[in-house]
Amino acid sequence: MNHAGAAAQLEPVLSRIDDDLAASLKRMFELVRIPSISTDPAYSAQCRQAAEWLSAELASIGFDASVRDTAGHPMVVAHHEGGSADAPHVLFYGHYDVQPVDPLELWDTDPFEPTIRNAADGSKIITGRGTADDKGQLLTFVEACRAWKSVHGSLPCRVTILFEGEEESGSPSLKPFLQANAGELKADFALVCDTSMWDAETPAISTGLRGLVGEEITVRAADRDLHSGYFGGAAANPIHILAKVLADLHDETGRVTIPGFYEGVEETPDEILRQWESLGASNEDFLGAIGLSLPAGEQGRSVLELTWARPTAEVNGITGGYTGEGFKTVIAAEASAKVSFRLVGDQDPETIRAAFRDFVRARIPADCSVSFEEHGGSPGIRLPYDSPVIQKAKDALSDEWPKPAALIGMGGSIPIVGDFQSLLGMDSVLVGFGLSDDRIHSPNEKYALKSFHKGQRSWARIMAALAG
Amino acid sequence: MNHAGAAAQLEPVLSRIDDDLAASLKRMFELVRIPSISTDPAYSAQCRQAAEWLSAELASIGFDASVRDTAGHPMVVAHHEGGSADAPHVLFYGHYDVQPVDPLELWDTDPFEPTIRNAADGSKIITGRGTADDKGQLLTFVEACRAWKSVHGSLPCRVTILFEGEEESGSPSLKPFLQANAGELKADFALVCDTSMWDAETPAISTGLRGLVGEEITVRAADRDLHSGYFGGAAANPIHILAKVLADLHDETGRVTIPGFYEGVEETPDEILRQWESLGASNEDFLGAIGLSLPAGEQGRSVLELTWARPTAEVNGITGGYTGEGFKTVIAAEASAKVSFRLVGDQDPETIRAAFRDFVRARIPADCSVSFEEHGGSPGIRLPYDSPVIQKAKDALSDEWPKPAALIGMGGSIPIVGDFQSLLGMDSVLVGFGLSDDRIHSPNEKYALKSFHKGQRSWARIMAALAG
Repeated sequence: MNHAGAAAQLEPVLSRIDDDLAASLKRMFELVRIPSISTDPAYSAQCRQAAEWLSAELASIGFDASVRDTAGHPMVVAHHEGGSADAPHVLFYGHYDVQPVDPLELWDTDPFEPTIRNAADGSKIITGRGTADDKGQLLTFVEACRAWKSVHGSLPCRVTILFEGEEESGSPSLKPFLQANAGELKADFALVCDTSMWDAETPAISTGLRGLVGEEITVRAADRDLHSGYFGGAAANPIHILAKVLADLHDETGRVTIPGFYEGVEETPDEILRQWESLGASNEDFLGAIGLSLPAGEQGRSVLELTWARPTAEVNGITGGYTGEGFKTVIAAEASAKVSFRLVGDQDPETIRAAFRDFVRARIPADCSVSFEEHGGSPGIRLPYDSPVIQKAKDALSDEWPKPAALIGMGGSIPIVGDFQSLLGMDSVLVGFGLSDDRIHSPNEKYALKSFHKGQRSWARIMAALAG
Repeated sequence: MNHAGAAAQLEPVLSRIDDDLAASLKRMFELVRIPSISTDPAYSAQCRQAAEWLSAELASIGFDASVRDTAGHPMVVAHHEGGSADAPHVLFYGHYDVQPVDPLELWDTDPFEPTIRNAADGSKIITGRGTADDKGQLLTFVEACRAWKSVHGSLPCRVTILFEGEEESGSPSLKPFLQANAGELKADFALVCDTSMWDAETPAISTGLRGLVGEEITVRAADRDLHSGYFGGAAANPIHILAKVLADLHDETGRVTIPGFYEGVEETPDEILRQWESLGASNEDFLGAIGLSLPAGEQGRSVLELTWARPTAEVNGITGGYTGEGFKTVIAAEASAKVSFRLVGDQDPETIRAAFRDFVRARIPADCSVSFEEHGGSPGIRLPYDSPVIQKAKDALSDEWPKPAALIGMGGSIPIVGDFQSLLGMDSVLVGFGLSDDRIHSPNEKYALKSFHKGQRSWARIMAALAG
């Protein structure tokens, strides 16, 4: 199949996607209704249920699909032949697991009963946990394949699909699975759909991703909870110790103070900074959208640089002592915090983890103790701006959307991209249709109906372009 | 009734207490089984149930007893005439509410199903929430009255009893109730049973009590929970802000840094410090008992001075972000902490509260906000060492226990003592039979069987001495 062939096949596929939108939404709703919260062991059965649902859907399209057990939640792997000898073999990746939904009382709708609603701007949105991250996104590709197959009885290129169920909980089973199945999963490159558009009119390909190190620390002092009257002023308070550790993580200029933290972090070239500046994202707009106005991190840098090209230390959760209603004059026996680091450039996850642990231990009194629990680690990624594959995808996206596609950085971590590079020798093309107000990881997550619809059309266009 | 008369009446009362121990325990168990957790609105009905139980018990002894409504949990008030014209009128105070029981999984027994067990040293203990704080303690006085009345058909002095149900949650209804019922409640002095012995052989009268200011602070940043990848490094993190505030509360020497905090705090006279030193409580013993070894507060002071005569700032609880199992890369919209201050000398609760709020506000970024919730406030108290009433109580206690009674300080707060002084013009005599390992406010609270038994005998002796 040559370029003209695939391009000629495109139009009826786009029409089929348009005609089939209601049915594709119905399928998406089925998947969103499955509460596949990977980080909470109480939802293990639901994670497996989501995997089985996806495997069955892929089989119905004609993929050779299977649910594959791991030590954690299962993987879904599916294969379909297609295209000419020149057409690439692509590996498409998504994740079927979702974030927890607490605090549940802040949701306007049931997180696991999707609805279609009108947003304030009149556009239609799909509500529910996972609609944007990542169930709705991964289905844009599946539905594009379904349309192409149903129109032409074939696919324009060879496609392997990998869906995991532990992306929101550190992907503990991913590396072993990639290593054990490298021959089966290796393709020419990967397509990953777990990112956002620049704005509602401007599609984007992410060429930089921050890495992630997760750590949970627990400080222990007395061997029991104490009455703060009898012991206050004499006994160590683990919340004080923890607060001091966390307060020490940043200096007055917002820089992380852990020794060696910035080793491997390069300054972003001026031309890249200028390009980002030209996207017109002011600090005021970026922060105003979430009710803030002052950049909180390293002083003197734009919000795009702070979130795309600078490393961070963030406390994601803290708990200790009495946190119920009313008051309890207690000195807790222990206090704990979940801390994550976003990494860029050549920062090494395990070096950062070790430096953090040393930093904490140096601040624990001799009669108290601290323990650490690891929650994943991955380095930052920078993808080549100038690869032909990225250029083809960029052109295909620019054909579908009102404005040309932008090559952007990204603040979040998608460890799979690093694993594809290191374990399978594959680069990834990161295309997604999320929007910055999708509230992923928060109450009232949503996905634009337009993202779901034009996302499918975008993948059809990208497949046609890649096959050419 | 003269001194010889009351003293002559004592011996059969002590025998009756001994003979009636099993029945008095049965009554105590009934009260402990009522989960009267005042700080949690879910237990309102149980608080009322405890009040009604006490009122009925007092009525059965012959008191004119009633449950009295307040805006919060009810009071119990009871009156009984007694004694000669020279005998004093005493107001006995206790509280029937208890602390929450979380974390429940750390209890070896059901907190609301009391048991009698053998402690490691072979002594018998009564397990359960409230056995020591304060249900078991208040019943020592009630049972002493019961024995005296059943032997002699009278009491050696006029007794008014006040039990409240909000001591563990800041006593919001207490001052209004005392003001509205001052004429009914005013006595010559108060007897308060909510304190501890010096050790298992040495009874104690507390002549100093720290005051308490409770504050809950909530820091708010973005208007929603954020993905730490997309916003980390640019958006304010309320846990960071809160950690900085809390870490700033103490300097490197353990002193509280809030401006003006130490105004009204006097250094303890050397002779008092020497007296405390003679009690033989080493830092090692005091802290070793709770698994610690290093005094954590102001440097260069003994643990007794730190807990009896120095003010503190303690964080009693903290929460923010994701605190469940696993990990969630979220930047929370808000974080909160419960903070309490123990006050001594002339520190003014409302001045301290205002200074703390200014201290916090000065550390909140301009685009974030903080709110405060008040949880009670009372000044510290120092009672006269040399009053005749305290001397009589000291002698009576010394007759009952193996070692003479000690006059000690106390780290906890009993706001009622300040309210009795300011609203009713009454001093209080603080006598209690708790022990330092009673684990009050913690899992596995207990009360020594000996405390319950000899506590009743102690009150009989004190009443006899006061009536003389």
